[in-house]
Amino acid sequence: MALRDLETPTLVLDRQTLEQNTARMTRRFAGTGVRLRPHMKTSKSIQVARLALAGNFGGITVSTLKEAEYFAEHGITDITYAVSIMPDKLGRVIALKRRGVRISIITDQVAIAEQVSSIAASEGVVLDTFIELDSGERRAGVLADSDELGVLGLALEELPGTQLEGVLTHAGHSYQGRSLSQIQAIAESERLCATTAADRLRSIGLVVPVVSVGSTPTATHGLSYEGVNEVRCGVYMFGDVFQSEINSCRPEDIALSVLATVIGHRRDLDTALIDAGALALSKDRSTGAAGLPEDVGYGLVLDATGTRRIDGVQVGHVYQEHGMLVSETPFPFEMLPVGSRVRILPNHACMTAAMHPGYHVVDGADDTAMRDWPRINGW
Amino acid sequence: MALRDLETPTLVLDRQTLEQNTARMTRRFAGTGVRLRPHMKTSKSIQVARLALAGNFGGITVSTLKEAEYFAEHGITDITYAVSIMPDKLGRVIALKRRGVRISIITDQVAIAEQVSSIAASEGVVLDTFIELDSGERRAGVLADSDELGVLGLALEELPGTQLEGVLTHAGHSYQGRSLSQIQAIAESERLCATTAADRLRSIGLVVPVVSVGSTPTATHGLSYEGVNEVRCGVYMFGDVFQSEINSCRPEDIALSVLATVIGHRRDLDTALIDAGALALSKDRSTGAAGLPEDVGYGLVLDATGTRRIDGVQVGHVYQEHGMLVSETPFPFEMLPVGSRVRILPNHACMTAAMHPGYHVVDGADDTAMRDWPRINGW
Repeated sequence: MALRDLETPTLVLDRQTLEQNTARMTRRFAGTGVRLRPHMKTSKSIQVARLALAGNFGGITVSTLKEAEYFAEHGITDITYAVSIMPDKLGRVIALKRRGVRISIITDQVAIAEQVSSIAASEGVVLDTFIELDSGERRAGVLADSDELGVLGLALEELPGTQLEGVLTHAGHSYQGRSLSQIQAIAESERLCATTAADRLRSIGLVVPVVSVGSTPTATHGLSYEGVNEVRCGVYMFGDVFQSEINSCRPEDIALSVLATVIGHRRDLDTALIDAGALALSKDRSTGAAGLPEDVGYGLVLDATGTRRIDGVQVGHVYQEHGMLVSETPFPFEMLPVGSRVRILPNHACMTAAMHPGYHVVDGADDTAMRDWPRINGW
Repeated sequence: MALRDLETPTLVLDRQTLEQNTARMTRRFAGTGVRLRPHMKTSKSIQVARLALAGNFGGITVSTLKEAEYFAEHGITDITYAVSIMPDKLGRVIALKRRGVRISIITDQVAIAEQVSSIAASEGVVLDTFIELDSGERRAGVLADSDELGVLGLALEELPGTQLEGVLTHAGHSYQGRSLSQIQAIAESERLCATTAADRLRSIGLVVPVVSVGSTPTATHGLSYEGVNEVRCGVYMFGDVFQSEINSCRPEDIALSVLATVIGHRRDLDTALIDAGALALSKDRSTGAAGLPEDVGYGLVLDATGTRRIDGVQVGHVYQEHGMLVSETPFPFEMLPVGSRVRILPNHACMTAAMHPGYHVVDGADDTAMRDWPRINGW
């Protein structure tokens, strides 16, 4: 099997680019005292995890318990489940712990810490728990300078069934950064949030083993990680058009694409249709956000080899199973005959990958050794 | 198992509402000489198909060959695959035909008709093929008054391996209708497109057995179907907030919802978080389209029973696994404590359902006999 044998739409992953991306981030933190705990929420694949873990300490971050269970089944034994824990999900956490997985959970609510404590204690386990901090994303987390921080830290330390593992924050607002200096400033505020919180907890006598930050932009561009000892990031492995537009990667670093077929020409409308619509690409329109250099619609269009951009052409609209190619200049019908193929680079790799059950993996332009890597979707 | 035993996020389908919706559309066309061929692209479920087919002739429409194969395995033997056929997909079509399925394909390109003919003839089969018409959506299809129409009709009739099954159009632009009269006018233009094309083909001596139109808005509100003998529509089964805003259904007709848990309060920001984000809800923002009565963000928030709207609250933002609830008035934290549950009505049922492997099916507020219905995602 090679790419030409595949039916479309389908998801293609370039292993060479992926490996360059994972190696680059691994090198960035090697020997710095900061451990890289790659976030597997983008790829949800054990084969990708193995590349991301090469040269690192072996721990990962996940966004669902289904990921945690899948990666544990495949031998990963150090996992942070980085979404606010709810008591009804503890059964699965405790089951993983009993299987020998070093699993950590996160919370930003004292009432939840108390419920976790009660359940864990009754089950006879102690759960390593991070305090989630809000370093500026304004989503979840406590503020580093809030009174809640100490209350939550003391609760986790003193309650049975929980143990304070550290502080953790995600500067998701780095996606709003529009220049290198803005992203560097956000990275610094992420670091200061985490180190300030750790210092405040230590000042009241608590042990704070892990000070964890991370997002792909701040992991890529931060100038200092002093006081931090763990970085979590995920989308750097695949890259996407949005990340390239905010300079977290170069366009040629994007490892993920959707292979699609041109299924129709509309010469009267100067458009063409492909068989990759909203269900193959997702409806993520992040490249339409303010301040970005280029709105590529629902994806950037390359030729079938994935190496050359079709200038001026983008996926202008998506329907459930149709994508409409539009062009800034007269549509290049001769370059894209009906039946020909294109590769669409996604706006947002996490969303596009999630629309597919797995990856067809090639090595750059060489698809002679193509193989399939599954993903673990769902919850 | 009842809803309270489920982990969140997960997808809930109310069978009572679903059955009311399917029965209403079935009644609308019963005895009119217009056959209802329900589109299964929204639900992708055999159990839903059985309800949609009750009282109808038994044929369905699908958007992927995976759906076609799945429904055929479950005993449905009359299937229209309503996305432009490509020659490399014919192997699966022919395999279904050999299994006794009456499968029809569609095209709007003479060059494709010729390739289909060649492959089908070499395989010794004749494929029933519709001419796809553009009735105003400006996506795929030939125009009813174009020269291409006759050329394509004659090709399908005269080439070996193909047979003209009829004309087919989808007034997808009915989603742009903002009033009953606009949607009625679009329905009439859809009908006129199909009947004009059929008449033109008949005038050159061709037999046009099926004249097929359809979209949920035009199937719901069309004033005449004269000359049409088949209607295809799908999202009417589930409904969604967008369809309710363009009056294809009432809000209480929406059968699909995402069950989510409140996982955090941010009293400092007057927001709360739920564990249904972009991967549970999709990133469809169709209720943000111009001219609609209300932008509900990424979904409309109901209480856990799915019966009462939480006034003023909506899913204002989504992240991969987080949804942020925002409120027009001070956030009702007391009504939605951490750990409590909500039901999110989707903007666009087709997209939200596609994020899930299946449905937890309840009967209105009664979840004592809850059961699971799978979906067939992918291609």
